Amino acid sequence: MADQKGILMVLSGFSGAGKGTLVKGLLRKYDNYALSVSMTTRAPREGERDGVEYFFTDTRHFEETIEQDGLIEYALYCGNYYGTPKAYVEEQMAAGRNVILEIELQGALKIKEKFPESLLIFVTPPSADELKRRLEKRGTESPEVIARRLARAAEESEGIEAYDYIVVNDELEACVEEIHRLVDAARRAPVRNTKFINQIREELQGFAKGEE
Amino acid sequence: MADQKGILMVLSGFSGAGKGTLVKGLLRKYDNYALSVSMTTRAPREGERDGVEYFFTDTRHFEETIEQDGLIEYALYCGNYYGTPKAYVEEQMAAGRNVILEIELQGALKIKEKFPESLLIFVTPPSADELKRRLEKRGTESPEVIARRLARAAEESEGIEAYDYIVVNDELEACVEEIHRLVDAARRAPVRNTKFINQIREELQGFAKGEE
Repeated sequence: MADQKGILMVLSGFSGAGKGTLVKGLLRKYDNYALSVSMTTRAPREGERDGVEYFFTDTRHFEETIEQDGLIEYALYCGNYYGTPKAYVEEQMAAGRNVILEIELQGALKIKEKFPESLLIFVTPPSADELKRRLEKRGTESPEVIARRLARAAEESEGIEAYDYIVVNDELEACVEEIHRLVDAARRAPVRNTKFINQIREELQGFAKGEE
Repeated sequence: MADQKGILMVLSGFSGAGKGTLVKGLLRKYDNYALSVSMTTRAPREGERDGVEYFFTDTRHFEETIEQDGLIEYALYCGNYYGTPKAYVEEQMAAGRNVILEIELQGALKIKEKFPESLLIFVTPPSADELKRRLEKRGTESPEVIARRLARAAEESEGIEAYDYIVVNDELEACVEEIHRLVDAARRAPVRNTKFINQIREELQGFAKGEE
């Protein structure tokens, strides 16, 4: 009954919540997810591969893509463009795959405005203490960077109510399965079943008018 | 993490969609559901038992209950009061049970307005043709009654978008399980996790201010 298109889902959450690992888990465990790769004009960092972490391009090509309406959202941060190429997202959704966008609150709100049928999920660790512990445990970040990330998390926490669901990443596998169940439940929202609803409505109105 | 309270859920749907059987299925299969029994001033019909189909009472007691704020919603139909007693709903939810209200669109909208954290589910057969077949197959209703029910269904179909989810009752057991999954997913909505969200927010803001 549900429209067979995949769901456009946004995964946001505090730095340290484990979004990247959850995305890998979804892609590994289920065959109906695809990860959207952003396009950017910033230079690749060491180890980043074109088409994996980002599609790297120049400003001229990025602006051409904007003009051709080739991005579903984009933003300019610190002089660099970041955006979500439309073609890949549409192809994957049409093929019935749920497309994951790993983006932040501002981008998430833009997506929801443009695509009310998108699904916004916010990932959090079980507590603020646990978030702090995870950031410290990495051992690679200076106290200043950790403090900045915690301040950023405090800001981000203001936007949680804009999301459809909040999930706690305590145990990875359980959290991956929970996200999958949420995506599955979302297929039953009226906004994702307009075709079915309109059809049954028309048929019922036909009966009511005495048509057979 | 989720607040441990049960969910207030409304089950609506076309006459012939199988709501009653679904409710029985939920109560039989899972131990965390409770069915709210409405209170009414209309006379019991043959076979109806007090406290099972309805709590039967008189107008004076019903109006006293209204005055004492003892109903979560009520309406007057054809000179008779119908309402949902508050005490039972609150007790069951506090005990962690999801409370099922089997009511129609108007009541559902009132519930959603008063309790934004309630969950509205609309049940439908796979098609309008199938609904017609089910109504005819009962064999107990006259063509006029069937026509009236179909006309009523056409009216009700206008309200589907107000519901959180639409589920197709094609195969009973599968549908019971699906509703249970939807209720489970609903536990992850921010509106049902305000305590957790406020707590992590305060803790993060504490860190951001440099508290330890």
